[in-house]
Amino acid sequence: MSNSFGRILKVTTFGESHGPYIGAVIDGCPSNIKICEDEINELLEKRRPVNQFFSTKRKEKDRATIISGVFNKMTTGAPICILIPNIDVDSSYYEEIKGVLKPSHADFTYYKKYKNYDYRGSGRASARETAARVAASLIAEKILEETNIKVFSYLYSVGDIDIVFKEEDFFEKIDKSVIFCPDKKAEEKMLKKLKEIKDEKDSIGGAVGFYIKNTLIGLGEPIYNKLNAKISFLLMSIPGVKAVEFGDGIESSKKTGSLRNDLFKYENQIFHTLTNNEGGINAGISNGEPIYGKVHFKPTPTISKQQKTVDTQGNKKILKSFENDRHDVCIAIRAVPVVKAMIYLALADFYLLNKAYGM
Amino acid sequence: MSNSFGRILKVTTFGESHGPYIGAVIDGCPSNIKICEDEINELLEKRRPVNQFFSTKRKEKDRATIISGVFNKMTTGAPICILIPNIDVDSSYYEEIKGVLKPSHADFTYYKKYKNYDYRGSGRASARETAARVAASLIAEKILEETNIKVFSYLYSVGDIDIVFKEEDFFEKIDKSVIFCPDKKAEEKMLKKLKEIKDEKDSIGGAVGFYIKNTLIGLGEPIYNKLNAKISFLLMSIPGVKAVEFGDGIESSKKTGSLRNDLFKYENQIFHTLTNNEGGINAGISNGEPIYGKVHFKPTPTISKQQKTVDTQGNKKILKSFENDRHDVCIAIRAVPVVKAMIYLALADFYLLNKAYGM
Amino acid sequence: MSNSFGRILKVTTFGESHGPYIGAVIDGCPSNIKICEDEINELLEKRRPVNQFFSTKRKEKDRATIISGVFNKMTTGAPICILIPNIDVDSSYYEEIKGVLKPSHADFTYYKKYKNYDYRGSGRASARETAARVAASLIAEKILEETNIKVFSYLYSVGDIDIVFKEEDFFEKIDKSVIFCPDKKAEEKMLKKLKEIKDEKDSIGGAVGFYIKNTLIGLGEPIYNKLNAKISFLLMSIPGVKAVEFGDGIESSKKTGSLRNDLFKYENQIFHTLTNNEGGINAGISNGEPIYGKVHFKPTPTISKQQKTVDTQGNKKILKSFENDRHDVCIAIRAVPVVKAMIYLALADFYLLNKAYGM
Amino acid sequence: MSNSFGRILKVTTFGESHGPYIGAVIDGCPSNIKICEDEINELLEKRRPVNQFFSTKRKEKDRATIISGVFNKMTTGAPICILIPNIDVDSSYYEEIKGVLKPSHADFTYYKKYKNYDYRGSGRASARETAARVAASLIAEKILEETNIKVFSYLYSVGDIDIVFKEEDFFEKIDKSVIFCPDKKAEEKMLKKLKEIKDEKDSIGGAVGFYIKNTLIGLGEPIYNKLNAKISFLLMSIPGVKAVEFGDGIESSKKTGSLRNDLFKYENQIFHTLTNNEGGINAGISNGEPIYGKVHFKPTPTISKQQKTVDTQGNKKILKSFENDRHDVCIAIRAVPVVKAMIYLALADFYLLNKAYGM
Repeated sequence: MSNSFGRILKVTTFGESHGPYIGAVIDGCPSNIKICEDEINELLEKRRPVNQFFSTKRKEKDRATIISGVFNKMTTGAPICILIPNIDVDSSYYEEIKGVLKPSHADFTYYKKYKNYDYRGSGRASARETAARVAASLIAEKILEETNIKVFSYLYSVGDIDIVFKEEDFFEKIDKSVIFCPDKKAEEKMLKKLKEIKDEKDSIGGAVGFYIKNTLIGLGEPIYNKLNAKISFLLMSIPGVKAVEFGDGIESSKKTGSLRNDLFKYENQIFHTLTNNEGGINAGISNGEPIYGKVHFKPTPTISKQQKTVDTQGNKKILKSFENDRHDVCIAIRAVPVVKAMIYLALADFYLLNKAYGM
Repeated sequence: MSNSFGRILKVTTFGESHGPYIGAVIDGCPSNIKICEDEINELLEKRRPVNQFFSTKRKEKDRATIISGVFNKMTTGAPICILIPNIDVDSSYYEEIKGVLKPSHADFTYYKKYKNYDYRGSGRASARETAARVAASLIAEKILEETNIKVFSYLYSVGDIDIVFKEEDFFEKIDKSVIFCPDKKAEEKMLKKLKEIKDEKDSIGGAVGFYIKNTLIGLGEPIYNKLNAKISFLLMSIPGVKAVEFGDGIESSKKTGSLRNDLFKYENQIFHTLTNNEGGINAGISNGEPIYGKVHFKPTPTISKQQKTVDTQGNKKILKSFENDRHDVCIAIRAVPVVKAMIYLALADFYLLNKAYGM
Repeated sequence: MSNSFGRILKVTTFGESHGPYIGAVIDGCPSNIKICEDEINELLEKRRPVNQFFSTKRKEKDRATIISGVFNKMTTGAPICILIPNIDVDSSYYEEIKGVLKPSHADFTYYKKYKNYDYRGSGRASARETAARVAASLIAEKILEETNIKVFSYLYSVGDIDIVFKEEDFFEKIDKSVIFCPDKKAEEKMLKKLKEIKDEKDSIGGAVGFYIKNTLIGLGEPIYNKLNAKISFLLMSIPGVKAVEFGDGIESSKKTGSLRNDLFKYENQIFHTLTNNEGGINAGISNGEPIYGKVHFKPTPTISKQQKTVDTQGNKKILKSFENDRHDVCIAIRAVPVVKAMIYLALADFYLLNKAYGM
Repeated sequence: MSNSFGRILKVTTFGESHGPYIGAVIDGCPSNIKICEDEINELLEKRRPVNQFFSTKRKEKDRATIISGVFNKMTTGAPICILIPNIDVDSSYYEEIKGVLKPSHADFTYYKKYKNYDYRGSGRASARETAARVAASLIAEKILEETNIKVFSYLYSVGDIDIVFKEEDFFEKIDKSVIFCPDKKAEEKMLKKLKEIKDEKDSIGGAVGFYIKNTLIGLGEPIYNKLNAKISFLLMSIPGVKAVEFGDGIESSKKTGSLRNDLFKYENQIFHTLTNNEGGINAGISNGEPIYGKVHFKPTPTISKQQKTVDTQGNKKILKSFENDRHDVCIAIRAVPVVKAMIYLALADFYLLNKAYGM
């Protein structure tokens, strides 16, 4: 496996869904950054299921512990290890369905590739693992505090219901919604849809939007480690992602150059573009305009309905229905803070790299 | 900059559009692979503009030279350096527009980030650089010859014209089309559209599809270096890409789990899925089904129409029209072999890594 | 900081001397390797101070816990996190000498580089950290079990007393000595010397030898990641190392080629060399002969005598004498198992890499 | 193989002794560094054989060409590819001894590991390859120009003749000696010894010293990527190196702590140590004192005397005498500029990394 990423700021995560802990080691962190466990726990709180009808009932109130790299409440430059205990884990269901291949899930490929794998709660492949990423992202946020960069992520769509941007304080409204949806009207429809899907013992896909304000000019390392390439890499590693778009994304392929090109202007000694179809990135480097895009999530593969499948021996099986409350109706919702976390981690790494070059 | 990728098979490229050479160094290559320059030149031939009306007129008949790593026509394990001379380069136009920021182009960010950059033909940011990637991909193809893996890429759409899959020998038809489009009807419409756009001195976006046959089970390294994540990274690094999709991609976000999940079956001692919405990847690891997806390209930012812009000093400028024949009408066309090249390079790297684990 | 190493088998360590835990994450481990905590604890037992007069009294009976990556007592391919609690830590002495620069120690450079650092027991710079390396090395040993490779390390010298090779079962005697010295006569002299040094409240340098039996031919990746280069890198990272030699090492520089060259012979279908001055490595690649060399350690910088120094403000200070029992008389002794651990980790990594190439 | 090193400043080299070119790609270089081919050629001139009796007669007047990454005589941030043609190569001798294993040489291990290898002039394993490292080091020197760091390397010993430090302008005298020996008396003895060895058709070992003036405090990344560890790695990768020492090196293992510890003083607002046994490095980080050490080289394995050996089929062979003028009497001499080059490359990389952290 490959459980590390980052060039200057290196993140390594570990732990399985039903093991004692999940955790992260963040290495290459600058010293003298103020950091405390409460701040990590606040971030984790946003990510955890909130006992809403659309999320799993698992009461995993996460309490992270920093076990290294912080002294007198400040980072020392040493690797920061964060441990998050797994509590409220009940493996009985997984013992019952042991060997049965869950459709569109990790079972089959993990079984084939690794032979021995922790099938309980999907083990290492569980979305539970993303809590460690979110915890690690606090360090990235802190590193970027000396800039004005601010990353937002929000629920863009549930099934075919999507949001409409309009208000001034659009992004500030994200946290007021239980589903991270800043468009009140869309939120209502989404919640209604989620309820229906839940009642049908089904799941549904969704998309997460991201928006980066006050971007510095010059983040990203072409030709390969482009800003969009690296962010795509990190977003595609989130469980359930099937597509990533930057700027006008897929729509760009339908347009003509003369209508789509972002023309430059120069005002008040600042370069700007009249439009921002590129989503703030030219040739893999941030141009100072807002960076935005979308991440598309498939429906949760775990559903409460019964499904026909086979086991690892090839025997036909009926996959027992999951308890209705042990899975998310729409994984995109819980992924919203994870998208933000991964982007913060990418940006902090590029930011430190720019500093190496005096940029 | 960051001009290397790959973990076992490491590729480093170099060179600017109007410099004497572009090239690649491929390190970590197994020894005893038969390789010759003619094979590289064949691959390059597919990538180069064919003097069709929709491509640049630059007569860059590329002739690659292998200057290291091959002895007695076989690889030695030593780094393979491939040089491709830049011929037929005329920098006069670029001298005329020196300092003028081309919209949606690399000029602005390169200027801001690096201060000194080779503006001639976009320098390092030129799509010309992708020839080195294509040359390097021959090594990857050769490494994978001991498997049956076969990667196809094709022109999926031009503007809003897209193809329809139907025939048995669909992928075999790709190379018969001057625009890599295996659907004859769509090809006609596309060529017509390209002609119109050309006459309007404009450019247009397009999408490239990819399809991997006879995939091995078990390629990809979760949690971060997932097969889809790494391929996305490499595809997003191709100039002009704004979105990458795997399997049903964006559509997945609109579906319900019960209808979308790929159910397993077991027939003739082989596991298969009844559908393949996931595009052959479960939890970041190939499951043996065909891997497929799409890459969306923006319209060529260089157009023959005049455009309003500013120069690096902030002065308003009119960007002179480019000669009609010095740019591609639709970059997606020329990118078709590049998409294939990047996927081959990703697969070969994962394949070697699997062998390290006896997989 | 940089707390990871390894290319296929990646080791990341974390933790400070007086923090709650030290630990390691081993990523890239093959699945299906049988492993248990008891085996790690056995390795740690060898490394820990044994309450001999020459070692610190700290009763750190280490008990490692594996918190991820192992399921049903077998590795799963997922990252293995090993935690080792720090027990019996008393920071009071370090609070007393806070800010006083210990000569030839980490204080000054950590203070200057990181500003905020955990000065208690040298924090991250403590030799305590090497326990995590030793724990991680079990994985490497296990990976190499399918070969016959066997790594030995032993105390080669204390001050100017060094050992003489003679017996057949030389290396098997290492573990019978409390100071890892397989030469009984030398051991006696060394213990006497250590006692004297201890009584003088001083410390003394020493050297550790290593010897690798049944080496495979072909380990090592020139031109840069040569077998000797990588092992040197890892050995030089052990606290207190000032020199590393391979084969006849320093003596080689005094010899002539005609007398020193290792001539080849071919017997019983096997290539051998008549002599082994190269120490089993030609051009950075193992040649199948035993690999051997030496690692030279400075005397423990912490001594029980008082020393003149300054504090971080530049004020003259007398460094209080350390309690006689809180430091090692000769760090080379405790480093013996660490040298073996680092070599195992290097070899396992090269071994997996060779498998990637079908070697 | 593994032909790259460096974390921020990445160097990749390629090319064989008897191929058309050797070369280097330097990636991650800051932009706006003034650089020209003449400066590279000056560095190469120092490394090349000077037709002295003790060096090979090969008249390889190297002329490097920069083919990318430099525009208007300044770096652009793009990868810099430097090509050095191999001229005056005569492969006839190597064809004659094809398949015969040269003792203490690369033949055997390259043959066994790679099967197909370029045996002409040792191919990739040739010391010729170090010319590319020297060329690359110019970039490192330039990056460090904004500091006062100055690296010196010199011939420390030939066989058992070694130098004595005395004069003020010791290091400035290095370049006045044809064998890079700043001690006039030792130089005379060395030249006499070299002549004798030459006349005996033999070769001899030697050691290279290094000395770094005006070091910054804080270079090096513990726990693994320590300054001494990384420099050792790079020095051990130079052909013929058998040992590396820092500070008092091997002698340190014979000393007591009370006599060896470097005591701190504070004068004129600067911290210094009264002695410098550590060689300017504490706990893997530079402490501001001069960094010094030694690198020990074995005698050139190629000698003009006949040697008994076997061929790759195991047949007994007499290795024909090499022409007296086609090999170096003492490889340490030609390695002097290479040692300096590798240290500059290590320092520049750590320097850029420190800047990432605002150090």
